[in-house]
Parts: sequence; C-alpha cells; structure tokens
Amino acid sequence: MAPRSQLNPNFSGKLGSRNISTIKASEALQSRVRRKTYLDKVCRAEDLVEMGLFPDGSYIGWSGFTGVGYPKKIPTALADHVEKNNLQGKLKYNLFVGASSGSETENRWARNNMIERRAPHQVGKEIAKGINNGNIKFFDKHLSMFPVDLMYGYYTMHKPNNRLDWAIVEASAITEDGGIIPGASVGASPEIIQMADKIIIEVNTAAPSFEGLHDITMTDLPPRRKPYLVMAPEDRIGTPHIPVDPERVVAVVESDYPDKTQHNSPEDDTSRAIASNLIEFLKHEVDRGRLPDNLLPIQSGIGNIANAVVGGLASGGANFKNLKVWTEVLQDSFLDLFDSGNLDFATSTSIRFSPEGFKRFYAGWQEYSPKLLLRSQQVSNSPEIIRRLGVIGMNTPVEVDIYAHANSTCVMGSRMLNGLGGSADFLRSAKYSIMHTPSTRPTKADPTGVSCIVPMCTHVDQTEHDLDIVVTEQGLADVRGLSPGERACVIIEKTAHPDYKPILRDYFEKAEYECLKKGMGHEPHLLFQVFNMHKNLQEKGTMKIEKWE
Amino acid sequence: MAPRSQLNPNFSGKLGSRNISTIKASEALQSRVRRKTYLDKVCRAEDLVEMGLFPDGSYIGWSGFTGVGYPKKIPTALADHVEKNNLQGKLKYNLFVGASSGSETENRWARNNMIERRAPHQVGKEIAKGINNGNIKFFDKHLSMFPVDLMYGYYTMHKPNNRLDWAIVEASAITEDGGIIPGASVGASPEIIQMADKIIIEVNTAAPSFEGLHDITMTDLPPRRKPYLVMAPEDRIGTPHIPVDPERVVAVVESDYPDKTQHNSPEDDTSRAIASNLIEFLKHEVDRGRLPDNLLPIQSGIGNIANAVVGGLASGGANFKNLKVWTEVLQDSFLDLFDSGNLDFATSTSIRFSPEGFKRFYAGWQEYSPKLLLRSQQVSNSPEIIRRLGVIGMNTPVEVDIYAHANSTCVMGSRMLNGLGGSADFLRSAKYSIMHTPSTRPTKADPTGVSCIVPMCTHVDQTEHDLDIVVTEQGLADVRGLSPGERACVIIEKTAHPDYKPILRDYFEKAEYECLKKGMGHEPHLLFQVFNMHKNLQEKGTMKIEKWE
Repeated sequence: MAPRSQLNPNFSGKLGSRNISTIKASEALQSRVRRKTYLDKVCRAEDLVEMGLFPDGSYIGWSGFTGVGYPKKIPTALADHVEKNNLQGKLKYNLFVGASSGSETENRWARNNMIERRAPHQVGKEIAKGINNGNIKFFDKHLSMFPVDLMYGYYTMHKPNNRLDWAIVEASAITEDGGIIPGASVGASPEIIQMADKIIIEVNTAAPSFEGLHDITMTDLPPRRKPYLVMAPEDRIGTPHIPVDPERVVAVVESDYPDKTQHNSPEDDTSRAIASNLIEFLKHEVDRGRLPDNLLPIQSGIGNIANAVVGGLASGGANFKNLKVWTEVLQDSFLDLFDSGNLDFATSTSIRFSPEGFKRFYAGWQEYSPKLLLRSQQVSNSPEIIRRLGVIGMNTPVEVDIYAHANSTCVMGSRMLNGLGGSADFLRSAKYSIMHTPSTRPTKADPTGVSCIVPMCTHVDQTEHDLDIVVTEQGLADVRGLSPGERACVIIEKTAHPDYKPILRDYFEKAEYECLKKGMGHEPHLLFQVFNMHKNLQEKGTMKIEKWE
Repeated sequence: MAPRSQLNPNFSGKLGSRNISTIKASEALQSRVRRKTYLDKVCRAEDLVEMGLFPDGSYIGWSGFTGVGYPKKIPTALADHVEKNNLQGKLKYNLFVGASSGSETENRWARNNMIERRAPHQVGKEIAKGINNGNIKFFDKHLSMFPVDLMYGYYTMHKPNNRLDWAIVEASAITEDGGIIPGASVGASPEIIQMADKIIIEVNTAAPSFEGLHDITMTDLPPRRKPYLVMAPEDRIGTPHIPVDPERVVAVVESDYPDKTQHNSPEDDTSRAIASNLIEFLKHEVDRGRLPDNLLPIQSGIGNIANAVVGGLASGGANFKNLKVWTEVLQDSFLDLFDSGNLDFATSTSIRFSPEGFKRFYAGWQEYSPKLLLRSQQVSNSPEIIRRLGVIGMNTPVEVDIYAHANSTCVMGSRMLNGLGGSADFLRSAKYSIMHTPSTRPTKADPTGVSCIVPMCTHVDQTEHDLDIVVTEQGLADVRGLSPGERACVIIEKTAHPDYKPILRDYFEKAEYECLKKGMGHEPHLLFQVFNMHKNLQEKGTMKIEKWE
C-alpha cells in the first residue's frame, strides 16, 4: 500500500518508482511507445490497484466514447478487487467518460455498486438500473459542453484543488514527446487529461495503431479561447496526438484485448420507409435550390434508422455524390457509404464499428484512413462548427409532440435511457434539424401500443424552437416557419400512425377550442389531461384512449 | 395604382420614376444621405401605399429590435390606409422583425388585423392578443437562428422566388456607397436586406446619426460561411454600415419622430434581493478562481431584475472593475454602469433606452460611443461567440421547475407572452447559465398565489441540460454537476418561497418514492398529478394545494 499521504488531493503526480513495482515492457508495447522514459513506468493494473491508489470517492476520468477507446485493465482490476474483497458499495467513484464505455467495465462497475456519480452518457443495462434505482447520481449534459464544464471546474467544485484525481486513458501509441495517440475515439480525453492530477495510460497492443487519424485540440479557458478554424469536414486544426505533461504520467499499462463492440441493429421495413421519406425530402430541397447537389455535411446517430438512412445514401437510388459527413460517431453503414464511392470525407469523435466492421476497416486502412478524421467531442459536436457548416442533423427520440418538442432521454418523464448525447448540440444548430422515429412502438398488450407522437412530451430535451422536420414511416412533417397550431396539424396528419390520428386530432381540436375561448390559444393544451395517453399506457398497456375527458 | 404586373414576385426592384411621385429632399435629409442618387428616390409614405405596392399576403421584413430602430412612416401609412378604407382583415402581411417593433406600428397593425404571420419576438398587448386568439400565426425562434433560417429560405418557402417582397429599414444615415447606417438597433436588418427583392429606406432625421457605432457582418450560406473572429467584446469584424445594392432601393422616406420607447421598470426589494444573491455568488466564484477579477462578459436581459443586477454592479459594493458586456440589448442601467467607471466596453444588437436615457446618451456621446458597438443579432446572440467568450448569461423565466427546466414563453403551457428572445442562445452556451426570478408572483386571490418554482414546467424552452444557477430573493441554487434528485432538493430549499417549500418537498418525496419503486427514479415525477398546482391556480387563484392526490 502507498502511504495515505500520497493520496491527498495535492499529490504532485510523481509516485516515485519505489512505490510501484514496474515490469519490463513487452516487445509489442515497446514498439508502440516512442517516449522511452515511459517504459520505466510500465506496471500491471493489479499492482496499481493493490497499492490503494484509488480510494473511495476518487474523481476519475476515463477515455472512451460510444464503447470504443475506453480503458480496460485498471477498471477490470478494480472490479476484481472489489469482488474479491466484498467491497461492493464501499469503493464508489465519481466517474466521467465522454460517452459510454465498454459494458464489461462500466456495467460491471455498476453491478458492483462502484459508481457514485456519472456523466454525461452511458449505455448498459446495469448502469441504467443503477441510475433509475437511485444508486448512481447521473447527470447528462450536451456532449459538446461536458468537456468545457469539466475544464471550468464545475464537476470538481467540492474538491479542494478543483481537479480530477485520475485520468485513465487508452492509447494506441505514444509519441516521442510522450503524447497520446488515441484509438477509435477521442471523446473528452483531451480535457480529462488537462484536468487530472495523475495520468495512467493503457496502451492497447491488441488493436492496430491509429496514428494519423486524429486531429486534436486542447481547451483554453475564456478569455483566452480561440475560434475553431474549421471551414470543411476535412480541415485539420490541431495535432495528431494529445499533448501530455510526462511528469503527470504515473504509470503505463499494456492492454491486451480490443474494444468489445456490439453488432449494429439491422434495418427493417419501418426504418427503410423512414429513410426513403427522408431521402425524398433531401432531393426536394436540392431541387428547390436550398441544398447543393452534394448536400451539406451529414450528421447521423446510431441505430437502425440511421443505418437505413446511410444505407439509402449508399445505394444507387439516392444518387447524391461527393457527400461529406460531420458527425459524432460512425457505424458500419458508413463503410458501405465509403465503398459506394459517394462519400468524400467523414469526421467524428468515434468510430464504433462492429467486430466485423473493424476487421473490414483495418483491411481497408489505406483506402479509408485518408478520408477520415477523429476529433475531440467538443469539436465534433461544436455548435460553432455545426452552424457554420450547415450540417444536416438527424436523431431518434423517445417521443415527439404535436408542437415539435422532443424527448431524447426520459421514458414517462422519469426513467433515464442513455442520456442526451449530442442530439441537442446538433439539432439546435444544424441547418436541417431532423427527428426520425417509428410512429409507434409495440407493448406486450398491443403491437402499436405506444405512439411516438404525443400531445406533450413527458420530458423535453429538444424544444419547438429547434426542430425543422419530423419523419416517421408514415410520412414527413416539414414544420419550418409554422406556428404551433399549423405544426400540430402537419405532424398529426403526416407522421402519426393511423390508429392515433383520430386521438391526436381530437386532442388538438378540443385543446384549441378550450384555449381560444380563454384567449390563450398560441399553443393549445389541455394541461390537466395532457398525459392521459401515457396514463392509459401505464394502466392498460396501450396509449389508445377512448376519449379525452 | 401601379400596374399589377409590377407587383409580381419577379419584380426587379426598379419601379421607375414614372410610377412614384418623388418629392424634394429636405435639408435635414440631404445632410444624412451621402449617396446622391438616393435623393431622386425620396417619396412620401402615403404615396407609396396608395400605389398598391403592398398587396395582401406580401412578405415584409422590418428593421428594429426591442422597440428601437424600427420603420415608422410606411407602417403608419399602411395602417392609415387600412383604417380609412375599412380593410381590416383584408390586407394581411407576413411580417418578420428581428425582435419587437414600436407599439404604435406593430400593435396598431395587430389591432387592425393586418398581421397574418409574425416571427420571432414581439411586445405589445394587441399583438399578444392576436397571437392568443388565433388571428396571428406566430412562431418564435432563437434570435441568433432566425436570420439564418430566413437566409435559408425557410420562411419564404411557399413563394416562387423564395424571397421577401420588401425590406423596410430605418437608417440614421446613408453612406456614399448607398449603405445603411442603422439607428439604435441592428437586429436582423442585414439578412432582411439580403433576402428582399425591394428595399425602402426610412431615414430618421429626428434622432442623431449613429454613424461609427455599428459593426456589420452579412450572412454567407454554407458551405461558404466563415468564423466570427471575435475574441473580445470590443473586436470589430465588419463594416460600419449595412452594404446595400442601390438598384434594389425603390424609395427613400424621411422619418420625422424618434423611437417611442417606454420607461424602464424600477427596481424593488425583491429584485434587489435577487441581485444581491447573484453578486454574492459571482464574488464567490472569483474567490474560488473560477472567474477572473473583472468577471467575464456579462449578458443581461430587460426588466427590473436585470436593472437591479446591473445597478448592483455599478454601485461601489460589488467592487468589480473593468467589466465588459456582451449582450442582446442595453437598457438605462448600463449608462449608470458606464458612469460608475466599472464598465470598459459593451456590445449588443440594440440600445433600448428610455426617452430620458436617450437624452443622456446623446449628451454623453463623446464619452459613451468609444465604448460601445452594435452588431447584428446573429452576432450578438451567436452561440459561437458566447461560448468562446465564456459569457455570464442571466435571464428571467415564466417558471422554473425543480429539475431546472425553464419556461420562457407560454403561461400555463399555452398563452404566449413575448417569445423566446435570445434566452436560449445565451443559456445554452454561456459559461454561467443563470435564471433569476421572484420566487412567487401575486394573483388577485393571493399575494403569493403563483410559485415560480414548480414541479414541472408547463412549457419547456430551456432544458435541464442548460441551466447552472437558479436564483430568487430567497436564495441561490447552484445545480452544476448535480443529478436531478440533488437539483430538486437544492432548488426547493434555496429558491422556493416558504409557503411553497412544504408543497414542493412533498411532491418530490412522493414522486421519488413512487418512481424508485418502479425502477424509474432518475428524474422522479408524478406524471398524472404534476400540474395540480396549476390546476388549483386556475380554479382557486392560488397554487397552494392541500395535498398531492
């Protein structure tokens, strides 16, 4: 065990070799680490954990974004330690990760009740359970803003030095200067490294080096912040690595297995119909001269609708050439888009391919890598750049209401799914702010028991001031420049499922009648019946109500 | 009457002198108009109106922002024409103004049922009435985004040429090139001029020329948009005038009365208490090293709380020196702040002084003008710049909920007040996103009948992902980095009125109990009772309910 004095918050970052048992670097590790002094700091994760470097209540930042590029060894060793010593609920951490980490690390931490606080985005059954049963204090924040708020000291306010204790960051290689070449994601690593007292680098030798694929900018604080001089997705404005102060690097750990990613959700008839409506619309906008022939940079989320949209763009039918992508995360379908020859350049903060996708990507490295750039999430999701480039932003919500607010996070207003992600970064500033969703989802009781079009969202993450287009498999509602009443009519008629059209029409008509009568008809609501569809869902397993009271 | 053929949407902008009876320019007008060819286009507003240049359904953009710098003669002549000929409801226009115009123009148009559609922000009883009784199709949009969406053609999509018919813009002078020197506001005039087929300039000779006070940037469309290279409030990046294509200038009209502004709402004990809590907090942030001694650029809204805050900064007690302001609109209290010697520079898109304030401003021109710059609303409200500068954003909501969502627009979810304004532009991207509000408002039945802290906002304009601080006269809730449950406790304890604390506590405890039981406790709500306080207000004139069902 290290003496407790070394664990105090003013700890300088030097542990001194006498306290850590270092080991000899493997050949694989030596080939990745060009900073030779780091090779004197190579340790085993278990040894670091056994030293007691991570006391209860530590503030820890991990690399990683959408389940790629996350640290594997230290989190696993810590979970082992907790399980072996029955420390569940006794070692709890304040954990900050750009977006979701690997389920074998983060989910296991949640299962072991090791997470006191977590931001800003997560994926995994156990962690969602912990958040919704009150074990994990979760807050989500716009992914572009999270790293800035971290730098402002907003998440470490209650610590005397206002900093993170640890940055645990995966690298795919180390430069001569000691800088970190990330793997398949950048996320919030630059800011986590800037804000951490002590840094542990996990060098992953089980996946190839990603050197050359990154464009890294660090974060200055106001009044010394500068513009991001990105005028096109391919513009480089930073360095190919994350600069690191070598004196703060406490240890280097070799990581020996690749990112554990999942398969992509397949397209289905619904998602293909949504994609087809959307591509039709984009063609219309080109015809009307509001979009160039090669569109504008595309942002696309994760999931089967996004897959279908990107698949649609890759197929011959859409016939858009020389496309560019400015997005948060790339999934397998973008490889198809590259292969179709229609995609000139793509940039994001993460490439979250399936295991097969990564194989394909590595095999085609020479072909793909010159057309790809990974940036920090503060840049990939920057409202400054999104607005400047005129991005076409597309996301999937939990529900959308008839006035074009959207819920991206909390089912029934209360149950957290994964978090906000970058949805609001893109939808607020995009040239085209598009929400795509199936018109209904099934329940046990009714195959169309949930309408994704509702009178009022039970939680609002995107406001009516942010959305331009709502599209379902039923059709596309273009609400640009429309008043709330007009929006309601278009959204109900174009996007709602036929089973719900009469119910929603009835709501709007009654609400309009009542509100106009009282001289409050701008955005008509029956405030005290507004969640009756949700109530019926809870009680009877379907949103199909007989009538509005 | 001009032949109808001249009114078609492809009209080139030249009416030809044979159709317009021009008049000789007054000496005052000649002294303001340095572009001599414009002097051949001087007309009387009545004559232009009588020519039938503004048929029913025209798309018209006005200059103006927060009731200053708006056109006066043509709108008045059109209202005269409607009243004289009983054309109420028969001449209706699609009207776009950066923010509110003068009440003697816009309100009168509303009273005469002359407004078919209006965006994005308005002030005035008659126009609010028209919006809420269904006569006026109003939509509001972030003030930074409105001019961009206008340029995208989103508000003129249903016109064959996708453009505005008319820009009617007030100038305080005209340059040799024919460019417009605006008056006390810039607003959306640059984009309205870019998007209009035909331009009428009202040169106001009743107020001084504002030459030198503006920094104007025009709007390019993606993919040709550039960064705003503003690194500090005083940075100039544009021209001192709005460039205009002289061939599109159809007429010049002399305007002979100044902006009709109102008096500022005075401070009171509540607003002073709020200001005091806020200034205390800013001092704390300086002490903790999260803010420089001279703070960061301040954004402050309109109204008595804003007045009290700025007044507090001007008084000796706060002791902040070398302040700078980056905001949307300046009111009288900023003159005090200048006079205190604590304000080094201020920039906004509008200076909305009271009549006395303007007198004071003109008298002190030599002193004030070197420290002041007016920009377009796309720049003053630009998320790009707000985030870069780390602005301290402060706004007043209708209501805030216990999880830190805020309603800025719709009372009881339905009745529009003035619109969103720039609140969300600032609150989303500011370093400090602050909502200040009295904890209660009076009703006829109960002096504290309305709680401004509620379980759930009846309309959400600012999300929980956007607010850092909620402050009332009761205290200040700092919700940075807190989970929803923690936020609820802090907001209730620190900001709610004592009459409502037990009611809100009871709500949160019941909601938490019910939701945790169901494993949906991230943001606990009793969805089907959530608006019971509002229901009680509607039925009994107070939000004080006996118990939650």
